[in-house]
Amino acid sequence: MHYPEPITKLMDSFSKLPGIGPKTASRLAFFVLDMKEDDVLDFAQALIKAKRDLGFCSVCGHITDTDPCYICEDKTRDRSLICVVETPQDVIAMEKMRDFGGLYHVLHGTISPMDGIGPEDINVPQLLKRLQNDEVKEVILATNPNVEGEATSMYISRLIKPSGISVTRIAHGLPMGGDLEYADEVTLSKAMEGRREL
Amino acid sequence: MHYPEPITKLMDSFSKLPGIGPKTASRLAFFVLDMKEDDVLDFAQALIKAKRDLGFCSVCGHITDTDPCYICEDKTRDRSLICVVETPQDVIAMEKMRDFGGLYHVLHGTISPMDGIGPEDINVPQLLKRLQNDEVKEVILATNPNVEGEATSMYISRLIKPSGISVTRIAHGLPMGGDLEYADEVTLSKAMEGRREL
Repeated sequence: MHYPEPITKLMDSFSKLPGIGPKTASRLAFFVLDMKEDDVLDFAQALIKAKRDLGFCSVCGHITDTDPCYICEDKTRDRSLICVVETPQDVIAMEKMRDFGGLYHVLHGTISPMDGIGPEDINVPQLLKRLQNDEVKEVILATNPNVEGEATSMYISRLIKPSGISVTRIAHGLPMGGDLEYADEVTLSKAMEGRREL
Repeated sequence: MHYPEPITKLMDSFSKLPGIGPKTASRLAFFVLDMKEDDVLDFAQALIKAKRDLGFCSVCGHITDTDPCYICEDKTRDRSLICVVETPQDVIAMEKMRDFGGLYHVLHGTISPMDGIGPEDINVPQLLKRLQNDEVKEVILATNPNVEGEATSMYISRLIKPSGISVTRIAHGLPMGGDLEYADEVTLSKAMEGRREL
């Protein structure tokens, strides 16, 4: 081996992260050697704390260091509205919009029969339990617009509809600032399909 | 803030690394949350160990966890030959070649008057000290082929030449597997200049 052992181990750890190959891992490891010791200690501590202190909210499945999470706890939010998303990152994207005042439900995945992932493997049963009290009036399905996301939305909407709760799907169409010329056919066809009167 | 604090801190740490912006930092932080706890602990430990246990060899300046480093310690290596490079990564690149049996000297930088970096700020005085015993017959200058690297090589060669030690510069030209058509003018001119009889 050409590297001293401590740096090999650090490179191994870096290259386990997504999108980081051996070259980048080596660059990052050498960068760490040049960092201030305090910064490296902070980094190490941040890793451990994030892993140890964070868990999933027992109500909505969002990532949190308190249980229930700050969104489920927030009494000012509209409890009649639940937005269903795939991942905690999606909750954060929605929250950045600052436009949605309801609650969330994180599925932690999508139904994908090809990979053997059924509705019980994702957070669907817990969602149905939440709907049993009469507070909820509308469920907004905000899974990703791809095959698995669509299938999951379709499945959940069929489960919920008989209960009389309104089920909606977020709109698909041209992204703002997008260019009609470069839009793909499926997006365009969704945009036409979802057209609204002005 | 939309993120729980432990994840914000982890994202901050990641985004201090080179080439990692806020989006990648968030992706990496969420990836860490999904990692096994043991792997995260290993990662944290690798960070601390690499920072604490590694230092620079007091002889050649290469990165090492022993002093002198394993290259300087190696009695089978040719002590009459010193290859001068800019960084520890360069030593590793040279070692991967498995073709060079001499010793190294790591400058930890280049002379760069624009940034106020003179010969005393990089590992040059230590190099001159190493040349004072009569073992060394040749110094190979393998700094990078850019303005600072060339200037540094030129400077060092002028310092050493009066002592009668042979000073050489690694060859510049077309990289193997490269394409003449796409080579830049400077490389081509260097390749012509450095031509050798067959």
